[in-house]
Amino acid sequence: MISTALSPTERSTPGRTKHRTVLERHALYDVLDTGLVCHIGLVLDDSPVVLPTGYGRDDDTLYLHGSTGARSLRTPPDGVDICVTVTHVDGIVYARSLNHHSMNYRSAVVHGRARPVTERDEKLHGLKVITEHLAPGSWDHARGVSNKEYAAVSVLALPLHEASVKVRAEGPNDDPEDVEANAVWAGVLPVRQMFGTPEPAADLATDLPVPTHVTARAAAPVAGHAATDTAD
Amino acid sequence: MISTALSPTERSTPGRTKHRTVLERHALYDVLDTGLVCHIGLVLDDSPVVLPTGYGRDDDTLYLHGSTGARSLRTPPDGVDICVTVTHVDGIVYARSLNHHSMNYRSAVVHGRARPVTERDEKLHGLKVITEHLAPGSWDHARGVSNKEYAAVSVLALPLHEASVKVRAEGPNDDPEDVEANAVWAGVLPVRQMFGTPEPAADLATDLPVPTHVTARAAAPVAGHAATDTAD
Repeated sequence: MISTALSPTERSTPGRTKHRTVLERHALYDVLDTGLVCHIGLVLDDSPVVLPTGYGRDDDTLYLHGSTGARSLRTPPDGVDICVTVTHVDGIVYARSLNHHSMNYRSAVVHGRARPVTERDEKLHGLKVITEHLAPGSWDHARGVSNKEYAAVSVLALPLHEASVKVRAEGPNDDPEDVEANAVWAGVLPVRQMFGTPEPAADLATDLPVPTHVTARAAAPVAGHAATDTAD
Repeated sequence: MISTALSPTERSTPGRTKHRTVLERHALYDVLDTGLVCHIGLVLDDSPVVLPTGYGRDDDTLYLHGSTGARSLRTPPDGVDICVTVTHVDGIVYARSLNHHSMNYRSAVVHGRARPVTERDEKLHGLKVITEHLAPGSWDHARGVSNKEYAAVSVLALPLHEASVKVRAEGPNDDPEDVEANAVWAGVLPVRQMFGTPEPAADLATDLPVPTHVTARAAAPVAGHAATDTAD
């Protein structure tokens, strides 16, 4: 059983920013469920490689789209050691001093051995989780996966066991002398990821309206899709 | 001399998505200059680690903030092999089939040996490049770096030599039968990163107005800061 607390290890909580580490599992879920893309790190010929890819979470398993570029993610039947990081930039922190300039952010770092998912029911479930994370509602709306498409795609599963979450969500931490001097403006410029207005495909017949699972996301913050995601 | 074309190698253009690879150097600059955060991958005790951090570009050098968490980024005087990836998510691609669901994105992957910057003039220059990328205008506006602060920070330099850029910026690529069937809506839901309204620090004296280098970014797309960045 996986405990409700996170299990950060030395490699998952490195260095200077320990005070920003959050140890509740729901914080990990929040960061993962509201992201659109993760960055997968792996070691290839002794060198690090970092690739962006789609993903989705089901309980304490992260499913990853393994066909997005990395050959090395598909080959080993016994799995591959990876690190998956999801980062939200929430604001630019303008401090009185250059030294205290910073970012507000939420990030999750997960370490573990990713296992290729080959059993048919689990692989289809993994594809559903990934699809519903990317495009909630599409699994029941779009044309399903053919046998040929099923064979060409690969899915990896990563347990959410060794993970850490860091959050900075506050104003600048200036030195008292700089606050006192009152010579420089300080504050936060928020950053938000927003959905825009749906753009129909050029080859779409004009009699097809935008479906509600798409309009529900339009012109809203990306983070707003979390509730839809977890409904799967 | 670094050529104006990119020099992608096997590890920087892995797998299936070769047709999305862009080989012009200005495309690399565009992706890097309009991002807010990069993901650094390194190998730590034989395992991959991926950490988000701030950065900035000056010509063909990427400067990285090396104090943000990874001990291992600071120690080796002869440098450390890293992979730096910057990804922009530009849209969710809704296709007629689940299989052709995708994302529009721009991503840059840079491989190389990051060198700790220790010479005073270059280290200050690197700090300026990183600061002006994060907060254009702050270098001349905020209180400068004290000797103590200078000693506590670390800067890494990575040459933009071995790099690749991938771009997907189009509608769904559905199979002809699915387009013909006209049974499912297809299109793109754009995703944009936006700056919000500046929020003054709680301890800020009320007589300090928001400076123009901050208001110039407010309530605008993040990508709009590229011109300001490269003015440095």
